[in-house]
Parts: sequence; structure tokens; C-alpha cells
Amino acid sequence: MSQQQMVEEIKGWVYEAGERIKEKLQSPLIVEEKANKSDLVTNVDKETEAFFINKIRQHYPDDQILGEEGLADQVTDFGGRVWVIDPIDGTLNFVKQQDNFCTMIAVYEEGIGQLGFIYEIMRDELLWGGKGIGVFLNDQEIKDVPDMTLEKGLISVNTHMFLRNTYETQTVAMKSLGVRMIGCAGIGFKELIKGNQTAYISNLQPWDYAPAKVLIEELGLKIIALNGEPLDLRQKVPILGATPATFEEIQNRQN
Amino acid sequence: MSQQQMVEEIKGWVYEAGERIKEKLQSPLIVEEKANKSDLVTNVDKETEAFFINKIRQHYPDDQILGEEGLADQVTDFGGRVWVIDPIDGTLNFVKQQDNFCTMIAVYEEGIGQLGFIYEIMRDELLWGGKGIGVFLNDQEIKDVPDMTLEKGLISVNTHMFLRNTYETQTVAMKSLGVRMIGCAGIGFKELIKGNQTAYISNLQPWDYAPAKVLIEELGLKIIALNGEPLDLRQKVPILGATPATFEEIQNRQN
Repeated sequence: MSQQQMVEEIKGWVYEAGERIKEKLQSPLIVEEKANKSDLVTNVDKETEAFFINKIRQHYPDDQILGEEGLADQVTDFGGRVWVIDPIDGTLNFVKQQDNFCTMIAVYEEGIGQLGFIYEIMRDELLWGGKGIGVFLNDQEIKDVPDMTLEKGLISVNTHMFLRNTYETQTVAMKSLGVRMIGCAGIGFKELIKGNQTAYISNLQPWDYAPAKVLIEELGLKIIALNGEPLDLRQKVPILGATPATFEEIQNRQN
Repeated sequence: MSQQQMVEEIKGWVYEAGERIKEKLQSPLIVEEKANKSDLVTNVDKETEAFFINKIRQHYPDDQILGEEGLADQVTDFGGRVWVIDPIDGTLNFVKQQDNFCTMIAVYEEGIGQLGFIYEIMRDELLWGGKGIGVFLNDQEIKDVPDMTLEKGLISVNTHMFLRNTYETQTVAMKSLGVRMIGCAGIGFKELIKGNQTAYISNLQPWDYAPAKVLIEELGLKIIALNGEPLDLRQKVPILGATPATFEEIQNRQN
């Protein structure tokens, strides 16, 4: 199967998942707490993860799958092809707003990002692309993301990192034109990739950043772990995604 | 003219303004700074304010008009009928994201809110209603907004008030399920009114809160100035909009 066919296949799954999720919003959700009262999982998160796992197992039986809700594999070796699934990114928004959430999927090979999909269902905005094939918003290719400095753009940050000024997040954020907090990593990265925002700072699990990393690198934007760890899908890390100019500014802020 | 006819007329203007604004987003914006680098005005703000003023002058020549961009009247006496216009609420988002902004209009008589319209153009969500006629999201009446406590809902807050902990905004916000910053008062209030969020705290001009006040009061939700001033459209004030339960919780937080 060509890469192009694989992209079309995954887009089909993502759109189908989106339709199912919208349908399920018509019925009451079954909501459970995970680590704390704002870390939620619903029946729809689980059913959507199972939906993607079924599709992948059926078409790519030899691949490993890493998923937020733990229904897939315990991946420790990132050799071969690994799929990374976040069935609903922004579950708290999903539960409380029925909006401002994404479904996300990424494909890595030998630890290297190949394809990424971030679908904001309620706006019908699919950001997708991959290594060597470009990045697209629905049918429109994204080219030349404006290389804004911090002073020229909006920034999206994690509430707790901002409150505690972790990695000088307050100092950085207050140099920008304005601070946004959306509560959904997919949307935070999407706004950066669309050129609507100059940076995104948050504490993220592998499934929160896996697809964005592929798209950001393909576009020549920057993404790093602020604690110096590699972005190897093995742990939760504090992440900065930014335009090159803002990245330089933040990296050099203590000079 | 009946109140019903007046509502339909204003809805027509609001939708027409929305269409014009979307069209104008196809061309480059002319952006100027007002008080500071994040306080912007564009040609579209001004043209939209002029559009509403023309409509009002034509149909209601004896009324006064208060508008964000200062093209209308210097209103000092709020007797008679006063129209309050925010042509684009969230201009910084409008410029940087071409999204997450509203057009808003309110009608007050003898200082009392009669009608309010908050239109989030890019989502095609019109929140409208008035004293004695109920509150609607597009064609759907909003009834029984869930009376969430702080612990059960999301809260939207102003960045500067959060950073400086003004009126203990940090303490209040961190008791909630999660903090959101959108950069648009209309959306902050809309999320409260839709039941997606338990409170909204910000520092607001009369045109930022005038329509929301009408809708909030009609629904039995709460809105006050945190500094004890009246909400009489005369000045910028720190505002709390909340469900009754959250309002009580915030008011009693020092007891």
C-alpha cells in the first residue's frame, strides 16, 4: 500500500470516528474520573479507542498500538511501526462543553514520526500530513507559517505551568500579545500550525503530542521538551511548540 | 412595532453584519493599535459599527447609541432608549485567528436591559433574547441552566486578573474543574449561558457586558461588578458572571 493510500484510509477512519462521536453526544455520557476530578474518561473515549484499534488490527496486524485509554499495547520498544491514538483529546471540554476537543492519530516508524492527524470534530477541521508529504488543513496545503516573534503573536499555555511560573511560563506568556487556555493539546498545536499563535506550552503525554510533532517538523516549526528529555513517546514531558523566532527568543531568554 | 418585530429586525442586522465580516476576512485587514499593542481596532470594527449605527438611525432616529469605536454618541444620560454596540468583540482574536470573536448588540430602556444579541459568527451561533421573552441559542430556547458549583464546572478568567490574583481570581479559578482563557467576553458569557461553564471573570467595558447582562438576568443567573459599582453602562468594571451556586460560593469565600 502506498503512503497516499494509507493517508486516505486513515482519513476515512478519522471522519468515521468523528461521525460516531457526534452521534454519541446525543445520548448521556458515562463519565469516570481517572487521576483526579478534572482527569476524565467517558464511554465515548473508550469506544473510539476500540474503534481505531479494530481498524488498525484488521489492516496492520503486525503493528504496535499506544493509546491513551490503555486498551491497546504496553509499548516499550518503538522499533517497527507504532500507532499512537488519542481518541478524545480534551475530554473535560468534551464532557462540559460538547466542543473544543479533537480526535488524534499518529504513525511512527522506528521512532520517527511519519503521519499525523488532528481532527477538531465540531469545527470539521482536519489537520493532517506527514514526513515528505506536506501539511494540510482539510484540502488546503499549509505553507510558509509566519515566523512570528513572541511580541507579535498569541500564546497558549497550560494553566498549572502558568500559575506556578514553571520554566518562566509567566514571563514568556506576558511578552506575547495575549494568553489563551483552551484545555485541548490538539487545538493548542493546531493554532500554532495554522499560524494563529506563536507558541504552545504544556505538560503532555505521548498521545497528546505525537501527531503534532510530525506536522510541526514537516513545516520547519520547533518542538522540544523543556526539561531536555527526548520526545521519544516514552513519558509525560513539559513541551514547547513554537515558531523558529519565538523558539529562539524563549531558549535565549536568560542570556 | 412589537417587541417581536424589533427582535426579528435586529437579528436580520446581526446576520447581515456577520456576512459582511466574513467577506471582509477575504481581504487584508487594516489594523491600528489603540491603548496598547494588544488593544486593536481594524477597518472591519469601524465599518461594522457604522453599519449598525446607520440601521439604528434610519429606524430609530430618536434613540441614543453607545459604541465601542466611538463613532456614535457620547452617552451620559441613560434615560430613553440606548443601543449598545460592540461591532467586533475579541478584535485581537479576529486579527490573529480570524476566529473566536463575536458581534454584539443590546437595547436598554431607562437604564434597564431589554434585548441582548451575542453572535459568534464563525460558529454561526446566535445567542439572543430579552426581558420577558426568554433566551435562545439560534432557534432553541435555553431553559434550566444547570446550577453548577465551582467544583463542578469550568471557569473562564481574564489573564491579568488571574496573574495578579485580583479579587482572589487564582483561588477561585483553581477550585474549578479547569481554567479557560479565550480572549472574547461574548464567548466567555456565552459559555456560561449555555451551561458549559460555571463562571466568567473579567475587566469589562459597557459594550462587553451589556447584551450578556440582559440574557443572564432573564435566565436567573448572576452578574455583578466585583468592586461594588452598579452595572450602569458608565464605566469599565471588574465583572463576575456566574451560576447562582458559584456566585454564592465566590461571594462567601472569605467567611
